[in-house]
Amino acid sequence: MKKLINSPENVVHEAMEGMVAAHGDLLKAHFDPNFLFRADAPVKGKVAIVSGGGSGHEPMHGGFVGKGMLDAACPGAVFTSPTPDQMHEATKAVNGGKGVLHIVKNYTGDVLNFEMAADLARGEGIEVEAVVIDDDVAVKDSTWTAGRRGVGTTVLAEKICGAAAEAGQSLTEVAALCKKVNAQGRSMGMALTSCTVPHVGKPTFEIGEEEMEMGVGIHGEPGRQRLKIANADSITEMLLKPIIEDIPFKSGDNVLLFVNSMGGTPAIELYVIYRKAHEILTKAGIKVTRNLVGPYITSLEMAGTSITVLKLDDQLTSLWDAAVHTPALRWRA
Amino acid sequence: MKKLINSPENVVHEAMEGMVAAHGDLLKAHFDPNFLFRADAPVKGKVAIVSGGGSGHEPMHGGFVGKGMLDAACPGAVFTSPTPDQMHEATKAVNGGKGVLHIVKNYTGDVLNFEMAADLARGEGIEVEAVVIDDDVAVKDSTWTAGRRGVGTTVLAEKICGAAAEAGQSLTEVAALCKKVNAQGRSMGMALTSCTVPHVGKPTFEIGEEEMEMGVGIHGEPGRQRLKIANADSITEMLLKPIIEDIPFKSGDNVLLFVNSMGGTPAIELYVIYRKAHEILTKAGIKVTRNLVGPYITSLEMAGTSITVLKLDDQLTSLWDAAVHTPALRWRA
Repeated sequence: MKKLINSPENVVHEAMEGMVAAHGDLLKAHFDPNFLFRADAPVKGKVAIVSGGGSGHEPMHGGFVGKGMLDAACPGAVFTSPTPDQMHEATKAVNGGKGVLHIVKNYTGDVLNFEMAADLARGEGIEVEAVVIDDDVAVKDSTWTAGRRGVGTTVLAEKICGAAAEAGQSLTEVAALCKKVNAQGRSMGMALTSCTVPHVGKPTFEIGEEEMEMGVGIHGEPGRQRLKIANADSITEMLLKPIIEDIPFKSGDNVLLFVNSMGGTPAIELYVIYRKAHEILTKAGIKVTRNLVGPYITSLEMAGTSITVLKLDDQLTSLWDAAVHTPALRWRA
Repeated sequence: MKKLINSPENVVHEAMEGMVAAHGDLLKAHFDPNFLFRADAPVKGKVAIVSGGGSGHEPMHGGFVGKGMLDAACPGAVFTSPTPDQMHEATKAVNGGKGVLHIVKNYTGDVLNFEMAADLARGEGIEVEAVVIDDDVAVKDSTWTAGRRGVGTTVLAEKICGAAAEAGQSLTEVAALCKKVNAQGRSMGMALTSCTVPHVGKPTFEIGEEEMEMGVGIHGEPGRQRLKIANADSITEMLLKPIIEDIPFKSGDNVLLFVNSMGGTPAIELYVIYRKAHEILTKAGIKVTRNLVGPYITSLEMAGTSITVLKLDDQLTSLWDAAVHTPALRWRA
């Protein structure tokens, strides 16, 4: 196993220390239980947003903590759900008196542990809403989920809901918005290689030199099919077709197109994919009015890509454009 | 070879098309000869900055085209210098009447071809200055250079000089500033794995499961030594020590610390490295006042990291903080 780490046991803790050393103006760390939270938390009178999940998907979620996005992120061990005490303590730490939204990717452990944390916090008088993201069209159920998995739309939901919370919306409004983003976003991914979980020490799955996994999950879970590797244009078509047909996206829609690296796929390849995805959508009369290209929801060093399409309206567009200042996403309105 | 491309011949062209499809508000493409340039070029009365080099180091340089950074970037084939006609045509396209600075990484082909382009442009009455970046402390000469290679400091020079040009500085001033950044920046990198050049189809170099290449170049050129793989803290020490001793950086210095991914190293590992680098510098009395963490000068999908340290003063700090809006770096002052 070739990794720039000191030990599998310490990688999450040390990465959190590195995040604080680099971005101490934006975030702080709480250890035992582990979470990263906004340096200025709690923000009085603002709905707070907490997310989290297994580590190994960086910059998600810690890299999205900051003004205009998350108030706290709870990192579990690599590819392992955080424990309820992490989300419970994070919820208490960032609660500014207007309630807390939990954004949860649909994996069984995450869902159960977030529910337990929400119950504990509610028992202490904190208003908590939870929205589960399940945008992955690849498979109906999977290794670690009942129902669809939560993937790329999570990033977009965290940005958009973060902007709404910053603008003073109520917990009910921000939660409804999160459900709307989930309802309007669809994703699918694929892998050329496996990744290696540090404490496992060997690749999560075997894949031949001529093979690719279509519909792969962000932990390397099996997807739809194992196919002979194809060219980038064909792969882009295979990912986009099920996405477009699912909602379905229609001629006249305005969308955000998000082309994501699974970690090991370089930018030059992402732009080859983006080019074809943009062309396919444009030909279908679907207008790409916003985009995001880069490694934002990854699977350690896995080579591969995922595509997310989110249907936009004026509300979502304006919240996407609103100021954000986090380690991984940063712009002003 | 597992890559998300259509063919090795088309990858650069198609990635440029993808860049324009995604970032048409910021940049345009010129094909044959190939270059990306600011959508609002030429900017009248502003010094223009042109850089370029082999592709495969994305987002460098195309991802740095935009307000506050580069006016144009000339991508060669993967790991191959662009040809003089690319830099010549780019120079003409972005010249706003106040002269053009070429920022050139010290590789023999790049230096010769940029010189030829500068001569052609000067023959047409365009004032051109060129500054060669040679910040890599790993080796004195290398496969493709006389003298030190140009690596991470290039990214910082492009940002800082871009801000100075935007602020109205003259060509003489911006060129002097670029030399100053080069004089005050030092880098060193290492690799855990090789990368594969698309038109070659096999790894650039062989490396054992237990080995790492210390001082590797951004094309996979040999570095200082092939060692048994060490832990992240030891690797960070091995990279930082030659950097600190070179200028040398001294107690009391303010610096920018840039921890870069060679492409295949995920963010979680970069922050483990950042943590230790920050600690070493702090213990030496060197204060990290600015930083950059991520994949900014890569070697395709190579796993590895490089560290760059740049000595800051008030001038450089304020130019670093100035607004920038490019695909890969974006903030407001």
